Amino acid sequence: MHIRKQRLLTPGPTPLYPGALQAMMASDIHHRTEDFRNVYRAVLAGLKQVLGTSHDVLVFSSSGTGAMEAAVSNLFSKGDKVIVCSAGKFGERWVEIAAAFGLEATLLKAEYGLPVTADRVEAALKAEPAARGVFVQASETSTGVAHDVEAMARAVSRTEAIFVVDAITGIGTQPLDIEGWGLDVLVGGSQKAFMIPPGLAFMALSPKAWKFAETASLPHYYFDLRKEKKNADKGESAWTPSTSLLLALNATLDYIRKVGMDRLVENAQLLARAARAGVTALGLELFAPTSPAASVTAVKAPEGWDSGVIIKELRNRFGCIIANGQGSMKGKIFRIAHLGYFDFADLFAVVAGVEIALAANGFPVTFGQGVAAVEKIYAQAALGQKAGGA
Amino acid sequence: MHIRKQRLLTPGPTPLYPGALQAMMASDIHHRTEDFRNVYRAVLAGLKQVLGTSHDVLVFSSSGTGAMEAAVSNLFSKGDKVIVCSAGKFGERWVEIAAAFGLEATLLKAEYGLPVTADRVEAALKAEPAARGVFVQASETSTGVAHDVEAMARAVSRTEAIFVVDAITGIGTQPLDIEGWGLDVLVGGSQKAFMIPPGLAFMALSPKAWKFAETASLPHYYFDLRKEKKNADKGESAWTPSTSLLLALNATLDYIRKVGMDRLVENAQLLARAARAGVTALGLELFAPTSPAASVTAVKAPEGWDSGVIIKELRNRFGCIIANGQGSMKGKIFRIAHLGYFDFADLFAVVAGVEIALAANGFPVTFGQGVAAVEKIYAQAALGQKAGGA
Repeated sequence: MHIRKQRLLTPGPTPLYPGALQAMMASDIHHRTEDFRNVYRAVLAGLKQVLGTSHDVLVFSSSGTGAMEAAVSNLFSKGDKVIVCSAGKFGERWVEIAAAFGLEATLLKAEYGLPVTADRVEAALKAEPAARGVFVQASETSTGVAHDVEAMARAVSRTEAIFVVDAITGIGTQPLDIEGWGLDVLVGGSQKAFMIPPGLAFMALSPKAWKFAETASLPHYYFDLRKEKKNADKGESAWTPSTSLLLALNATLDYIRKVGMDRLVENAQLLARAARAGVTALGLELFAPTSPAASVTAVKAPEGWDSGVIIKELRNRFGCIIANGQGSMKGKIFRIAHLGYFDFADLFAVVAGVEIALAANGFPVTFGQGVAAVEKIYAQAALGQKAGGA
Repeated sequence: MHIRKQRLLTPGPTPLYPGALQAMMASDIHHRTEDFRNVYRAVLAGLKQVLGTSHDVLVFSSSGTGAMEAAVSNLFSKGDKVIVCSAGKFGERWVEIAAAFGLEATLLKAEYGLPVTADRVEAALKAEPAARGVFVQASETSTGVAHDVEAMARAVSRTEAIFVVDAITGIGTQPLDIEGWGLDVLVGGSQKAFMIPPGLAFMALSPKAWKFAETASLPHYYFDLRKEKKNADKGESAWTPSTSLLLALNATLDYIRKVGMDRLVENAQLLARAARAGVTALGLELFAPTSPAASVTAVKAPEGWDSGVIIKELRNRFGCIIANGQGSMKGKIFRIAHLGYFDFADLFAVVAGVEIALAANGFPVTFGQGVAAVEKIYAQAALGQKAGGA
C-alpha cells in the first residue's frame, strides 16, 4: 500500500491549525478560575479585534446553528414580521428557525447557484415597513454563493429593522465591515476560518440589536444574550463552556492576528479565483458563476456524472476529503473549500486530483491544464514581473 | 521555587482521562463521513451500555444545561403543570428553565444541605393529579446531596407524569436503573464522570417520554429530540457536532467499560465515604450529613472562617483546584469531588492538604489524623483481614 495522508479539505470542519490542537492539551482547567478568565477575556478581545468591531461579541458552546437560533429567540417576539433571504440550505435554515419560533417571514428565495439581490431586499422592506428583521447568509456554503451584504445593509439600516447576518463561512473570506455597513447581528462558528474543531459559535451585536433584546418575548434559556453579556463582562460564560475549544480558539486568534485578517480574506479570495480558473480550464462549469463566494467553490459534475465519483476518487486515491452538494444538490456538484487554514499547495493537489479523477472515469483531460491555471493566478499574485512561467 | 503540579479536582470539569486528550488529536475529521459515523455510532452504543439502558440516547453539543432545556422545550407545552424538586443551585436551574418556558411549577424546596424527600413528591403528585412532569437532580452538586431517585421514580411511574432526572453528576456516582426504576428522561454531561472536557450533553429517553414529544408545543430548533433521533439512526448528529469531544468520549467510554460502570460508581462511593471520614476526623462538619452524594463531599469551613482560605491554600501550596460553595454557600463550604477519574492518591493528597491549610491558619490539627481515617477506609475495602495498620 502506498502512503495516503488524510487531508480534511471541506468548507467546515476545515483544516486545523496545529497550534490550536496543541493548546487543547491544556484542557484540565476550571472555567471559574482566574487562569481561565484570562483565556476567555483574551478570546473575546481577540474576536472583536479580528472582526474589526467594538460591538459586544458573545460566545456560545454550540454549533453555529445555536447562535442562529439565539438571534431569533432573543431578539424577536412571536408574530414579528421578518424578511428572510434564502439561496440554499443555510437560507432554508433561517426559514426553519423563523417558523419554529412563530415569526411571520416574507421569503426572498433565489434559485440554487444564484444570490438574493440587494434590490429585492430593498423592495421587500418598502412593501413591509413593519418588518423587524432581515436575515441572510454572507456566504451560502451549500451553493458557493456570496451575498452583497454591504448593499443589503444600506437598505436595512434606513429602516427600523435589524440586519442579521449568518457569516459562519463569510468571516475570513469576504470583507465584513460590521459597524461601517451596519451589520446588527453577525454570527460565526469555530470550525470555519477560525481553523479549530466545531463546537463554538459567536455573535457580534450592535446597540440597535441590543434594544431588540429588551422587548423580545420568545422563550429561551441556554442561549441567553443578556446573561452571556453580563457574565462576559466578568470574564466568564453563563454556563460551563467548551474549555478545550476556547483554548484552541485563543491559539488561532493569535495566529490570525499574526497573519492579519485582511490577508486571511485575501488568501481565500485568491485561492477561490485560482480554483475557478483551474476547474474551468478543465472544461468544468461553475455552479455559481455570477456571485461566487470565496469560502468555497462549487463545481458542476460533467454532464451525466454523479459528482460523488469525483469525491470518492479524491478520497480513495489521495486521502483528500472534499464536499459533495447538500440536499437536492447532492451528486450534482462538488465543492472545493478555501476558508481558513488552506494554501496553494492544498489547491495544487486538489486540482491535480480532480484531473486524475476525471481521467480515471473517461473524461478527456490534458494532465496539468487545471493546475497550470492555478499556477498562473499564483504567479500573477506572487511572482509579478520577474516570472518566467506561462 | 518548588515543583507544584496543577491538579483539577473539582466536581466538573473533572480530571481528564489521558487517552481522551490523545484522541482529540484526530479532530481533523468530517462529521458526514463513514469514519466519523463509526465514531458516533460507537459513542451512542457505548453510552447505552454504560447507562445500562436500551432506551434511545441522544447527544447534544452544549453544556448539560442545554440538555436540561431540551427536556423542557421538547416534551412540554406552555402552561403544563409540573413538580420541581429544588435542593440547591441546580434545582433552581430547573425552576428557572420551567419559568422561562411558561410551565406552571409546584416547587418542592429543601433547605441547602438537605434533600427533597420522595414522600413530598408522592404527596405533590396526589395534590396535583394533572402534573405532567417531575424534575429533580440525582445528585445536587452545589450542596453534595443525593436524592432518592428510586423512591421518587416509584411514585412518579404510577402517574401520567414523566420523571426528568438531571443526572449530570449522578451518573457514575450512584446507581441509576433507568428502565428498572422508570427514569423517563436522564440528562448527563461530558465533564463529569465521563472524564472529558465540557461541551457535550446526553439524554436517555423512555418510550413514555417520547410520547410527550408528539404533543408538546413549545418552540425549539437547535435542541430537537426527534431530529437528533432521526439523524442518530443514520450515525449522525442533526447539526455539526463537537467532533473533538466525541472522539474523546469514545476513548473514555472504552476505558469506563474496561473499569466497569459498577466499579466506577463503587469508586466514587468509597472515595466519598473516605472523604467524609477524613474531614470529620479533623473536627470539620459535613454540609449534607443526612443524604450525602458520592459525587462530591461538601464540608463546612470552621466556625468564623471563610472557606475560600482553605481553597486558596490548596491551590497556592499544592496546585490542587477544589471547589468553593456556589451562590450564598460561597465562603461557607468547600467541596471535595469524587466523580470520574479520581483515586485514593488524589484523596490522600487533598486531605493532607486540608490538614496543612487548617494548621497554617491556626486551626488545631494533629497532622495525619484526617489521612489516617481515609487510609482506614481504604484498608477495610482493599486489604481486608491481612491488614496490619490501625
